[in-house]
Amino acid sequence: MEIISENICFDGVQGVYSHKSTTCNCDMTFGLYLPPQAKTQSVPVLWYLSGLTCNHENAMTKAGAQGWAAQHGIALIFPDTSPRGDGVADDDNYTLGQGAGFYVNATQDPWKPHFQMWDYIADELPALVMSEFPLIDDLQAIIGHSMGGHGALTLAMTRPEQFKSVSAFAPIANPSTSPWGQEQLSAYLGDDKDTWAAYDSTVLMHENGHPNHVLIDQGTSDQFLNLLQPEKLSEAMAAKRQQGTFRMQKGFDHSYFFVASFMEDHVGFHAQALMGE
Amino acid sequence: MEIISENICFDGVQGVYSHKSTTCNCDMTFGLYLPPQAKTQSVPVLWYLSGLTCNHENAMTKAGAQGWAAQHGIALIFPDTSPRGDGVADDDNYTLGQGAGFYVNATQDPWKPHFQMWDYIADELPALVMSEFPLIDDLQAIIGHSMGGHGALTLAMTRPEQFKSVSAFAPIANPSTSPWGQEQLSAYLGDDKDTWAAYDSTVLMHENGHPNHVLIDQGTSDQFLNLLQPEKLSEAMAAKRQQGTFRMQKGFDHSYFFVASFMEDHVGFHAQALMGE
Repeated sequence: MEIISENICFDGVQGVYSHKSTTCNCDMTFGLYLPPQAKTQSVPVLWYLSGLTCNHENAMTKAGAQGWAAQHGIALIFPDTSPRGDGVADDDNYTLGQGAGFYVNATQDPWKPHFQMWDYIADELPALVMSEFPLIDDLQAIIGHSMGGHGALTLAMTRPEQFKSVSAFAPIANPSTSPWGQEQLSAYLGDDKDTWAAYDSTVLMHENGHPNHVLIDQGTSDQFLNLLQPEKLSEAMAAKRQQGTFRMQKGFDHSYFFVASFMEDHVGFHAQALMGE
Repeated sequence: MEIISENICFDGVQGVYSHKSTTCNCDMTFGLYLPPQAKTQSVPVLWYLSGLTCNHENAMTKAGAQGWAAQHGIALIFPDTSPRGDGVADDDNYTLGQGAGFYVNATQDPWKPHFQMWDYIADELPALVMSEFPLIDDLQAIIGHSMGGHGALTLAMTRPEQFKSVSAFAPIANPSTSPWGQEQLSAYLGDDKDTWAAYDSTVLMHENGHPNHVLIDQGTSDQFLNLLQPEKLSEAMAAKRQQGTFRMQKGFDHSYFFVASFMEDHVGFHAQALMGE
């Protein structure tokens, strides 16, 4: 693991690190914020999965999460959204390929050799950061925005013992039925739609749900509402009798100005879930 | 004035606007955050002046100021750091020309036709925003980072009746004696150093000071300490018996991770100064 940068932030350390990923077969970069409490003790972990076009840096600089993480004593991890590099397949469309991994394990060429983002986020990166930083393996939560909200929800509903708490900002709620999802799941997984269900939050909400309270925020003026389909997930949560809160926030759009506006709530929500605060 | 974008943020509006500047003889872009209180009343104003290489956007997205501004009911204005455009002079060095206006009125060619940033920030842009938005002319404060800290301090100490409160993050404290300053003041103002004094915070602190409490934050691990020369300003504040607080913050560097870490303090400081909170 190589240190790219480390900056003091709210008396903790905002670092950026890279490592050779055996899962994605390329160098991967991630951001990790250690709160000041980590100087003397191990701390819980909040994963933040980003959306289309983002890398590790966007949320790290724009979401305003570090101050709240420092207040609650929680670490933040900001993974990249896909494998990257000259040898990694890509597409002219920003919704496919580099910057658009969709948090799936690709089974189709040309994506299969590198696009194994599910395993990377679920297994390889947790093992690495747990060994390198003072983090509590048993206290992990996950949050995401847009494509990252889709990733956070699908990971948490499949691995509830690992991700004990989940929330999302404007998640891609039902990719199996959306232009933001159908093209990508078809490219990465092939046309057998049975394989898509494992990567669809609405399907997984109907099937599994999550053992803890689930928090979703969605702006009413989001320019991508017809692609995100929040009504699908909202309906599924109610139908499943999922303990949770689905908030339609008047006037907010899809930007980080929306994410930052409610970050205090989300970090506090996960602190409550992980530590009973 | 043209609306470039408007995003809801902490229940207020983060806007970006452009206008034809008669002072700088080009189109200028600025960010302006109106807190939710501005829906029903006029609000005080906090100017944020940015540093080298920045435009209106950096602090708007990275400083984490909107949440605190919403809490206190203060508007934020994020001006650009220089005139810009194809017809505007520039230099290969990032510390001169576009992105590096140094908040001075240039008297030398090729800078003179456009680089009138002092008058733009002190007069033209205030007049515009006061006429277009519900802002209280008599309640203005100013803050800046690095080159912007230099700008904020020099403007406030020259116009204390206009800028009733001032604070800075890692300001260029004594540009007349620093590589970050001597080259630029020479280029913009010529070699008569008597003309430089009006644009030097340490000189102005010794001469004028400011009628209100002054707040300065400086990181001890700032990579530019020898260019910023905080000791010059600190000495001047004490010698002038300036009411104020100069904080050397252990471990912090020059980045926005530093700025964001103390933004709550700075917005609260100006709220106290402007509104007696």
